[in-house]
Amino acid sequence: MYSFKNDYSEGAHPRILNALLESNLVQADGYGEDQFSRKAVDLLKEKMGRPDVDIHLLSGGTQTNLIAISAFLRPHEAAMAASTGHILGHETGAIEATGHKVLSIEAKNGKLTPSDVEKVLEGHPDEHMVKPKLVYISNSTEIGSIYNRSELIQLSDFCKKNQLFLYMDGARLGSALCSEGNDLQLSDLPGLVDAFYIGGTKNGALLGEALVICNDSLKEDFRYHLKQKGALLAKGRLLGIQFLELFRDNLFFELATHANKMAVILRNEISKGDIPFLTHSPSNQIFPILPNALITELEKKYLFHLWEKVDSDHSAIRLVTSWATKEEEVLAFIVDFKKFK
Amino acid sequence: MYSFKNDYSEGAHPRILNALLESNLVQADGYGEDQFSRKAVDLLKEKMGRPDVDIHLLSGGTQTNLIAISAFLRPHEAAMAASTGHILGHETGAIEATGHKVLSIEAKNGKLTPSDVEKVLEGHPDEHMVKPKLVYISNSTEIGSIYNRSELIQLSDFCKKNQLFLYMDGARLGSALCSEGNDLQLSDLPGLVDAFYIGGTKNGALLGEALVICNDSLKEDFRYHLKQKGALLAKGRLLGIQFLELFRDNLFFELATHANKMAVILRNEISKGDIPFLTHSPSNQIFPILPNALITELEKKYLFHLWEKVDSDHSAIRLVTSWATKEEEVLAFIVDFKKFK
Amino acid sequence: MYSFKNDYSEGAHPRILNALLESNLVQADGYGEDQFSRKAVDLLKEKMGRPDVDIHLLSGGTQTNLIAISAFLRPHEAAMAASTGHILGHETGAIEATGHKVLSIEAKNGKLTPSDVEKVLEGHPDEHMVKPKLVYISNSTEIGSIYNRSELIQLSDFCKKNQLFLYMDGARLGSALCSEGNDLQLSDLPGLVDAFYIGGTKNGALLGEALVICNDSLKEDFRYHLKQKGALLAKGRLLGIQFLELFRDNLFFELATHANKMAVILRNEISKGDIPFLTHSPSNQIFPILPNALITELEKKYLFHLWEKVDSDHSAIRLVTSWATKEEEVLAFIVDFKKFK
Amino acid sequence: MYSFKNDYSEGAHPRILNALLESNLVQADGYGEDQFSRKAVDLLKEKMGRPDVDIHLLSGGTQTNLIAISAFLRPHEAAMAASTGHILGHETGAIEATGHKVLSIEAKNGKLTPSDVEKVLEGHPDEHMVKPKLVYISNSTEIGSIYNRSELIQLSDFCKKNQLFLYMDGARLGSALCSEGNDLQLSDLPGLVDAFYIGGTKNGALLGEALVICNDSLKEDFRYHLKQKGALLAKGRLLGIQFLELFRDNLFFELATHANKMAVILRNEISKGDIPFLTHSPSNQIFPILPNALITELEKKYLFHLWEKVDSDHSAIRLVTSWATKEEEVLAFIVDFKKFK
Repeated sequence: MYSFKNDYSEGAHPRILNALLESNLVQADGYGEDQFSRKAVDLLKEKMGRPDVDIHLLSGGTQTNLIAISAFLRPHEAAMAASTGHILGHETGAIEATGHKVLSIEAKNGKLTPSDVEKVLEGHPDEHMVKPKLVYISNSTEIGSIYNRSELIQLSDFCKKNQLFLYMDGARLGSALCSEGNDLQLSDLPGLVDAFYIGGTKNGALLGEALVICNDSLKEDFRYHLKQKGALLAKGRLLGIQFLELFRDNLFFELATHANKMAVILRNEISKGDIPFLTHSPSNQIFPILPNALITELEKKYLFHLWEKVDSDHSAIRLVTSWATKEEEVLAFIVDFKKFK
Repeated sequence: MYSFKNDYSEGAHPRILNALLESNLVQADGYGEDQFSRKAVDLLKEKMGRPDVDIHLLSGGTQTNLIAISAFLRPHEAAMAASTGHILGHETGAIEATGHKVLSIEAKNGKLTPSDVEKVLEGHPDEHMVKPKLVYISNSTEIGSIYNRSELIQLSDFCKKNQLFLYMDGARLGSALCSEGNDLQLSDLPGLVDAFYIGGTKNGALLGEALVICNDSLKEDFRYHLKQKGALLAKGRLLGIQFLELFRDNLFFELATHANKMAVILRNEISKGDIPFLTHSPSNQIFPILPNALITELEKKYLFHLWEKVDSDHSAIRLVTSWATKEEEVLAFIVDFKKFK
Repeated sequence: MYSFKNDYSEGAHPRILNALLESNLVQADGYGEDQFSRKAVDLLKEKMGRPDVDIHLLSGGTQTNLIAISAFLRPHEAAMAASTGHILGHETGAIEATGHKVLSIEAKNGKLTPSDVEKVLEGHPDEHMVKPKLVYISNSTEIGSIYNRSELIQLSDFCKKNQLFLYMDGARLGSALCSEGNDLQLSDLPGLVDAFYIGGTKNGALLGEALVICNDSLKEDFRYHLKQKGALLAKGRLLGIQFLELFRDNLFFELATHANKMAVILRNEISKGDIPFLTHSPSNQIFPILPNALITELEKKYLFHLWEKVDSDHSAIRLVTSWATKEEEVLAFIVDFKKFK
Repeated sequence: MYSFKNDYSEGAHPRILNALLESNLVQADGYGEDQFSRKAVDLLKEKMGRPDVDIHLLSGGTQTNLIAISAFLRPHEAAMAASTGHILGHETGAIEATGHKVLSIEAKNGKLTPSDVEKVLEGHPDEHMVKPKLVYISNSTEIGSIYNRSELIQLSDFCKKNQLFLYMDGARLGSALCSEGNDLQLSDLPGLVDAFYIGGTKNGALLGEALVICNDSLKEDFRYHLKQKGALLAKGRLLGIQFLELFRDNLFFELATHANKMAVILRNEISKGDIPFLTHSPSNQIFPILPNALITELEKKYLFHLWEKVDSDHSAIRLVTSWATKEEEVLAFIVDFKKFK
């Protein structure tokens, strides 16, 4: 069975494994102070044209979210997130486990607007409630949508005006930045958010997320938090080597572009069959609403997530593509889709 | 400069990288539910002859310690450790960050005895103090010593009698079990401790520790803790594949044996020069006490840790060997040692 | 200005102050081990006919909630509460600060049903989410409603069947048990909930809540949690003496009955003016929906909370009565209400 | 049996109870925003000549310590304390429960010096260890000693120079400031420490500690922390009224002076018998080293703590006096002491 369940079903892009092989017996310092990690960090700063940001390499998204958010907030401060936000429902209360409430906001398309956040602020006027302080957004979001430049600027301005931190979960940032309709660039982000991360795990690495801290006030002593939460790998080189390989040319963006291209084929072909989608998603996750009978047929040959029941005869499924998705499997899926429809 | 600073200066044993390459494009489930991790866990159980233990694969030692200890203890309970214990002075308060005090015990050779622990219990009689509940030991210890079977049995019996959990940090368990004088086997451990981990990172893996939970009462819901603390890797396969390779034959023990053998050469040759050692350490870390002038000369060609000042003219250094330590470098070091002595 | 803002505007019932005076120079042990606290605890057990429960005296509701819930739950477990629940919006994230998520449930009348809880369970199937474990209810609720026996039995049965803890916040338990329509008795509670507290602060004491732990598995070492969270008063006698006085005869219930009686007068008289109420509340809090112009007039002479805007011309206010509410002030309020209506 | 066990064996000074009685039926706002608390805070500022400090009234010492320290520190920062410090051994890991390590310093007489602290800083050079940030001292200390002005100035200067917070636990500050040999005044403290508290519970109040925050950077949002940790009493007036009464004239100092005077009598008379003391303690706690046979006799008529075994025939006991200690009981004790000696 071929899997469209997620974008982390395979190992790493071959170039990454090769980079690990080539550097394997070179001795290096531990805990992220190795030459590879230093170079990777410098390279990323250069790519963004921002030598002043701080960059740390971590192992996964939940780890990055919990360390960043708990380092940024004082004990009485809370994060805010769209109700679909990964930190709300898919990280086992990781943020709360560090002592901070996450306030849920019902939001269209998984995205937050200044007015969404303003309502939360109005509802938290005094010390009998937590103090909302950090706005968590994902790009692309958990339901495949992306922020365009104007939306992000508005949110960023609102946060600055209200002394809020704006934090972007970039587990699928590659796909977002390479999506049709995207008008943001990696180099735009440091000016718009206080911190964000560039997801490697879901875009071709074995593991690895690059946390970029843009706001000076959030930089101090950050490595202490990494160590305290178990995120400093003894062989930090493993992360450095991978990010070096992803960014020394355009590999990172090429992999995301491939993933998106595979999703476009799926979306276009499925759309032709008068199939509606749960949400508009220009990135590497799509959510077609299919007749249950068709789903049953497809499940015999493909793996994917049943996302939600829509009515008694239809459900939305989630199809995810990745750097490793094979075009022939996409085409085979389309053939089967048409056959059983 | 050749480094004897630690046992994580290189990447992974070539067989491990090769295993990653071979399995790279096979699709697998995420978060440790993949076929490789399942097989690795089964293999480890088989090697120990204990199908009833629970095994989880994690990324590093600090992460494993903090998740295990915080999952095992109730909020008012404390861990106890030798003052040299890694959780006391080298993990940035990771255990305290989860809410638990670590009680420090001055101990000879980095090892705890029943009488050490008993004194702590006597000093904590009521609810105005934390309740000592978990005994943390390392094998080999942070200063290279190892527990023999009789010592571990005594400690284990004492803990059982006093309803204490006994937890073994096995970051360097491979080296301990392959040390001269060791009379413990991997398969002995589940009967003697409540939980322990088998360190991969310091014995040839890119990263990876296998936490073995032996006490039934500590098993329930453990994956929740992994996820909550950011330890469930999306590509958990990365850990599974490595442990499979380390244990499908004797690679794990062969690598540790090599590391120990290199340490034996260093120890023997240094000893011949009437050089004392800070502590008796049969494993892959040794702590010779050298004249400062000699240290200065050696530092020009080798990397190692200056461990502690002994008197105005002498200091102890730490030399660590590993699976990757080259015998010719060891011999070169000995030559230089003799030349400058 | 006379205040109907809350039920803690005055000091303590004179009999309580008198009891403090009479015992003042008697020497007693500290930290709740004094003769008064012991007697109070025994008396409460006797009143409930349950010598087997454990009872601890604490200073306030938030303190009691956070200590109980954090002591009862393991790190990955979560509480569930109606969206109006005090722990959700009025305790500054106190529960989250101990590491636990509180799952919000939209509920009618501030009360939870088995079906409400079941939906939460269904939505939390695996370790990528917190494990819902404790159902938090208030009686009377934050909006004045009460649980009747049958509702509580159903919820209790559901919780037992699903291995959930049922915890009742009894900040206003006195008022609930003395409400019109109530068919529960204090002695019913230990059989129905795993823990609850009897609120003293809002029913005539200077401060004080009696936490009753009914489930044996939750009793062990509880005093450690009290001390660790700063809740063991050096002069614990202060709490013991007050509960002794409240329960040595029927004072506790008499005070609640008076508070309810004052609320009944307000409710009845306001109702006569064809004024709707936001919610049916038989206890000491009522929420009439008044024309804004009338509210403006009343605000000149009385203190009360503006609860919520209902439409452009009307808002709900909250009127709270207590053991100390003077009937003449209630009648004066009614006169003014009628005059300005 | 008359008790010299502690300074919280009785209720409150009669003037305090009287103040509660007189104000009892006056309506007041809740949660510390009442007129009494506001006046008490203003009065304390006036007494110190420091209108710029922030003052909060709390219920007990452990509560105050844990809230202050956890509010002041970032997650990776640690407190330092003398090994006798209350937060180290007598508060059930309350500080660790908020996530922060407490580093223990062996110290003479329970007091810390700049050189003690400097050694800790030197031992914590990087992010693999916690960052020592707050120096916790007690005055008087847990073993009765006091800081003189010069000692406190030196420590304060050192802390400022090293960006450390200096925090003083003033559970027995009254006794310290009224001790023989003391040359500090209450008004000196805001210039020397970043925060401290004035203990009411052990000096005549039913309960109550006044936390004074002197460092501007520590003031923001402090009431959120109070609420989050369950320390905002609904009837905060209870604390305000008591501090008003203690400080509207010299009652606070008179009570401490009485306690000290009783201790002086005990110390002088016991000294005459060639009895050594464990430590020099000019405040209300003394630690004579007595023959065990004598202790046995005294235990028949008096309550006190057996502090520690000194040799096979002698032990140190702790005698504590308070505002309520009766001179006739002190004299009776002396008579018995002489009789059995």
